[in-house]
Amino acid sequence: MTDTAGKLRFGPEIMARLEELGSISHDHGALSRHFLTPEHKTAGELIRRWMENAGMKAGFDAIGNVVGRYEGVRADAPMLLTGSHFDTVRNAGKYDGMLGVVTPISCIKALREAGARLPFGIEVIAFADEEGVRFNSTLLGSRAVAGTFDPALLDKVDAEGITMAEALRRFGLDPARVREAAHKAEDVLGYVEIHIEQGPVLLNESIPVGVVTSIAGANRFVVHVEGLAGHAGTTPMNHRQDAAAAAAEMVLYVEKRCQDIESLVGTVGVLHVPKGATNVIPGVTEFTIDIRAGDDAVRKAAVADVLREIEAIARRRNVKAVANLQHEAHASPCAPRIMKHIADQIRVDGIEPRYLASGAGHDGMAMSDMTDIGMLFVRCGNGGISHNPAETMTVADADLGARIFLNVLRNFPVGERGR
Amino acid sequence: MTDTAGKLRFGPEIMARLEELGSISHDHGALSRHFLTPEHKTAGELIRRWMENAGMKAGFDAIGNVVGRYEGVRADAPMLLTGSHFDTVRNAGKYDGMLGVVTPISCIKALREAGARLPFGIEVIAFADEEGVRFNSTLLGSRAVAGTFDPALLDKVDAEGITMAEALRRFGLDPARVREAAHKAEDVLGYVEIHIEQGPVLLNESIPVGVVTSIAGANRFVVHVEGLAGHAGTTPMNHRQDAAAAAAEMVLYVEKRCQDIESLVGTVGVLHVPKGATNVIPGVTEFTIDIRAGDDAVRKAAVADVLREIEAIARRRNVKAVANLQHEAHASPCAPRIMKHIADQIRVDGIEPRYLASGAGHDGMAMSDMTDIGMLFVRCGNGGISHNPAETMTVADADLGARIFLNVLRNFPVGERGR
Repeated sequence: MTDTAGKLRFGPEIMARLEELGSISHDHGALSRHFLTPEHKTAGELIRRWMENAGMKAGFDAIGNVVGRYEGVRADAPMLLTGSHFDTVRNAGKYDGMLGVVTPISCIKALREAGARLPFGIEVIAFADEEGVRFNSTLLGSRAVAGTFDPALLDKVDAEGITMAEALRRFGLDPARVREAAHKAEDVLGYVEIHIEQGPVLLNESIPVGVVTSIAGANRFVVHVEGLAGHAGTTPMNHRQDAAAAAAEMVLYVEKRCQDIESLVGTVGVLHVPKGATNVIPGVTEFTIDIRAGDDAVRKAAVADVLREIEAIARRRNVKAVANLQHEAHASPCAPRIMKHIADQIRVDGIEPRYLASGAGHDGMAMSDMTDIGMLFVRCGNGGISHNPAETMTVADADLGARIFLNVLRNFPVGERGR
Repeated sequence: MTDTAGKLRFGPEIMARLEELGSISHDHGALSRHFLTPEHKTAGELIRRWMENAGMKAGFDAIGNVVGRYEGVRADAPMLLTGSHFDTVRNAGKYDGMLGVVTPISCIKALREAGARLPFGIEVIAFADEEGVRFNSTLLGSRAVAGTFDPALLDKVDAEGITMAEALRRFGLDPARVREAAHKAEDVLGYVEIHIEQGPVLLNESIPVGVVTSIAGANRFVVHVEGLAGHAGTTPMNHRQDAAAAAAEMVLYVEKRCQDIESLVGTVGVLHVPKGATNVIPGVTEFTIDIRAGDDAVRKAAVADVLREIEAIARRRNVKAVANLQHEAHASPCAPRIMKHIADQIRVDGIEPRYLASGAGHDGMAMSDMTDIGMLFVRCGNGGISHNPAETMTVADADLGARIFLNVLRNFPVGERGR
């Protein structure tokens, strides 16, 4: 089995299916598809049919993931897991997640058409929830598969007050049986995922694919700066305790500290003076900090420096600053053996592998609790924009991604398994 | 006539009257008194009675100011004008404006009790609107007296859609006759006002009173910074066009440029990222700039530098920044002859005059279009807070202010008049 069928053996089918999947939405004129909704069911049924058409045995699992099995030479062969999510953010793009559902299905179809049976089985999992929009809790599908789903989550309610347990029942699932979605680590060879980059790095370097080194760990803080409100006309500059000016210095330090360090990023996304008025010196300013890095030590060092500098700025300016940690997640490094394997398959196409960390979260974060993971990134267009209807990629890149991913699957090293 | 009656000859009466006046409010539990309201009428009647009790002929003028005349030795003697406003901001303090209404009434009462007739008359004007809360247009009372009231303002509407013309009618006034409130410059010797500082300078230097050199001119801008929104995890630092980081640099430049220059102040009071989210690089940030100085050249130089630096920061960071001018007012310098006169009266009490610019606006701004002006500042307490119920001053300072202001009035130089 080679790629002699032509350069665009996979691309057109993948792009057509992404269009079809992207048309199943709660909102008209915008793609929004959330966990345990009628659209989830409709899209899942479509994916199930594609899987069956590709020669897989497929169906919904206990959390609402769609799982398709392509058996190996023996029924008790170990399984290689692959997949991505098919839920979306609000007003989403069509490629985030879904590329990693549709591509492996096309790859399996090619294996079946070639009559290829491998020394391991392949399971394609279309994860039901990665974005976490409905219940404000991410990675529900992959956590269930990895066996780390916390049953306490079943009591979480959506915006309409419906619990996750009730939503599962309405979907036709039994909340008491969610744990049955979990896989046994000892049966699993590893987890590989193909995903759009959701950023501009590959695009700007004119490289179509990349090898993910790590899914970044992250810290999120809300910082509350309290100075003293005062009259903008009558308070001399050297008498001020200006919360906004202090915050501005902190914002610039976050930016400076995260500059020029591989995979480290720091962002102040929320910044505001509550009840600010043109002629009043800000007494309070609030902002958020989001710091991520592929390497936990790099991230922790940056966070420590940022917190120390916030303190120093506050002390020097005679204001109070409190940074409240909202979220902390460690990095999920990709397994060197899988990174090497993916890099090797990229070289087959004459491309020198570009390694990069993923600043965005992925199902692999949950899967890495169970097994070794690896990810193949595909370039996006339009400046790398994602979580936005302007998200895009080319049919040529979809095709190349699938050709490489087919090799990633069929040549997967069986010497080691799990980790 | 001396101050032999005791150290606190005036203070207790002034403080008691400020309490009484401060209790006349639209809101319960907070002082809010606006133009042409029932509270304006009630407070004005009280002031009229105090004026009459002090020996003045008093009544409402054509815009709703309360005007009290204390005649000089001859009915056609020139007039010295004094006063301040008795409207308030929302949830105001009791001293802003009203000290300058109540103090001259006590001074005139002392003159009358001493049987003193001066070579000039004194007119005490309690201005009906300085803050401009109801019709979002300031200095209505003093503009009418100075003859600069724009009749187009009569069409302005309040929050309930009532025009100023209709509000005047409901108050019992005729909008067609507002111009009758105007004084003739040739009849006027000058305008003097006593007012709390509304800032911390005198308090911090432990000086009870100050001579105002100028009422600051001001520029106000709204600045709109537009960069490019992006994923906080996947966009490397050197690919960003972060509107908030750019704005932070601009905020700090405003602060730095206005530092250490006499009477110059620069404030960013509003600062926000519209629809900001923790994990999104800000695509837009908006903020305001308020720059004031007692000297117009100083202010204009700062404004020019700030606008130039905003451009430079935007260019360097590859974002767009547009600064829209919302308001510009020139400074109103106090007349050197009146400053000298006020300083001389301060020295009588053994105090070395402290000169300072007023960053806040005052009725003197409008009056300076008609005649020379001068202002005596009195220290406030509580860090200099104003436009706030926490505004405060001591009875001793009220007393000292009145003793000095009595001398300012009775010794006013008659050699020159107007300007």
